[in-house]
Amino acid sequence: MMGRQERALEIARRAGADAVLAAHPSTVAWLTGHAADIETGPSPFALAPLALVAAREPPTLIVSEDEAGAVPAGCEVVSYPGYSLGPLDPVGAAAAALEHAVGGRKVATEPAVLPAALASRVSWLDVSADLASARAVKDDDEIELLRGAIELCDVGQRAARARAAPGMTELELWALVRAAIEAEAGGRTPLLADLVSGPRTEEIGGHPGERPLVDGDLVICDLVPRRAGYWGDSCATIPIGMPSGAARERYGAVREALARAVDGVRPGMRAGDLDALTRDGLDYPHHTGHGLGTAWHEEPRIVPGATTMLEPGMVVALEPGSYGDGQGIRVEQVVLITSDGCDILSGHELEL
Amino acid sequence: MMGRQERALEIARRAGADAVLAAHPSTVAWLTGHAADIETGPSPFALAPLALVAAREPPTLIVSEDEAGAVPAGCEVVSYPGYSLGPLDPVGAAAAALEHAVGGRKVATEPAVLPAALASRVSWLDVSADLASARAVKDDDEIELLRGAIELCDVGQRAARARAAPGMTELELWALVRAAIEAEAGGRTPLLADLVSGPRTEEIGGHPGERPLVDGDLVICDLVPRRAGYWGDSCATIPIGMPSGAARERYGAVREALARAVDGVRPGMRAGDLDALTRDGLDYPHHTGHGLGTAWHEEPRIVPGATTMLEPGMVVALEPGSYGDGQGIRVEQVVLITSDGCDILSGHELEL
Repeated sequence: MMGRQERALEIARRAGADAVLAAHPSTVAWLTGHAADIETGPSPFALAPLALVAAREPPTLIVSEDEAGAVPAGCEVVSYPGYSLGPLDPVGAAAAALEHAVGGRKVATEPAVLPAALASRVSWLDVSADLASARAVKDDDEIELLRGAIELCDVGQRAARARAAPGMTELELWALVRAAIEAEAGGRTPLLADLVSGPRTEEIGGHPGERPLVDGDLVICDLVPRRAGYWGDSCATIPIGMPSGAARERYGAVREALARAVDGVRPGMRAGDLDALTRDGLDYPHHTGHGLGTAWHEEPRIVPGATTMLEPGMVVALEPGSYGDGQGIRVEQVVLITSDGCDILSGHELEL
Repeated sequence: MMGRQERALEIARRAGADAVLAAHPSTVAWLTGHAADIETGPSPFALAPLALVAAREPPTLIVSEDEAGAVPAGCEVVSYPGYSLGPLDPVGAAAAALEHAVGGRKVATEPAVLPAALASRVSWLDVSADLASARAVKDDDEIELLRGAIELCDVGQRAARARAAPGMTELELWALVRAAIEAEAGGRTPLLADLVSGPRTEEIGGHPGERPLVDGDLVICDLVPRRAGYWGDSCATIPIGMPSGAARERYGAVREALARAVDGVRPGMRAGDLDALTRDGLDYPHHTGHGLGTAWHEEPRIVPGATTMLEPGMVVALEPGSYGDGQGIRVEQVVLITSDGCDILSGHELEL
């Protein structure tokens, strides 16, 4: 099988371009391993990194000098001035670096992300959708990186379950969970999450707030951390004290749905058929699952009617739920699709 | 004085456009009060919000339906489909919404951020630099929002000083500081920060890591939280135990430099002259300061030779430092330039 750089380049060639110019942070990370800073918005000193992949050349990152030292081994760098005590011109500098790196070739790129000020400096065509599809099947090293990200989920879920207690606010629990994840990671960690309790669980998700946990609550804890450019994902529903009979019943139905998904997933199956198999008897208003990689939601999307064919090497988060009567339950595991089923990558506790 | 929407529109008119199309999250927040989610990178379901400002119309946000409910009062919304169980097409949907909102007018925009896929759907020209300059002088309501963001800095600095102790890692201290800030804010808070200890302080800044604090360390704690779209900023250098004589001496020089800046800043002064006044006798390799608003580093930049004229209503973070011999010191306060000097907005402790 071709590696991902070759597959990307093949997409560019078929479209009539000479090279791939990745602009989406997920595609840049996928092709180079370089994960852009994302937690504090655009930098005043540089544009987001771009990656150029062409035949018979190592992938090239186009980044500011400030970022050049963080580039992974095996990548070339075309850098431009970044932070300075003098006047700043990140756009002009990045555009010049881009022109230099591209050197008149036609590039296949992602115009949903590539800034207009850069796009006007090169000859380009749009291959966003094909690149997004190509990301769905993971290379072996990507699967190891995903395992590492999912370890962070497991650590966070363990902390949430161990620390959740009546009287603590959602935000207090959140701080403990994030601290556990960052301690495991050894540093700041981008983290998408739902952390909602009590009646808020019926709303499916949301940011942690000031609501104090009370005995009898459920807590939906959905943790999506990024490590080395790859996103983990996991969800558990954690009871505060003894769950009610209604909660146990709802949980049973959701847990069974997840088991149906994990037991039933096969290569060659349509994503929509996996959705139907899992959703049977439940009516959650969201997807059954989604691919996971350098983006936190990517192909294959496990949604009603989806025709994407599941393949070995796809990594899919499966997350059926049930919401109503003032409460919600969701459980989620990440699986790697194999030649005859799947391996469960998630290691966190799912019991209510 | 004209409000900021009128000033932005005047920039567009002078450039020959009919309306402003803000694309940078800082400009969108500045013109509408709508602060985009930034902590987890691009969404697979929507493009970043755009804002259209035209004469005799309320500002219009172009956002997905998922985001439309969070739009501030006083703004119109042109929305497009976002999250869906069906196929996703955020670019096509956003482009159609943009075309509808713009309606054939020529827009003055920010091509360093506006995606190429959207730029190709409207007639545009570049006014990035003028918009960035226009943001430098704050309206009264912006100053109140900045005060609110700086309150978060004060809370974080108080937590850092109270909790920093030998044996704790930088990451552990970071978790406590961020928890204090998010508790005060009542929710998740984007946060740029330097948190480095011991010999790492000589490196000026960096993310918190696994180094344990030891007696005699200095800790540089530079906290930059966003609240309601506006960024606070603050820095203190916190001693673990008794600071050394060398640290006290270095601190004295930096504290004096900050006092020179705060005492000396005047409207009508060139930014470069404020830099020289502050930097005198120190040789820190970074700016003396920068404007603060919907971006964490904006005009006026207080750097050597800068010719920007300081004006009442500018809000400036001043942050001289000194680094060498295995240690670093930096202190920072935010000031509002007034008709005859400045008001200090920061309330945190600066003593070593």
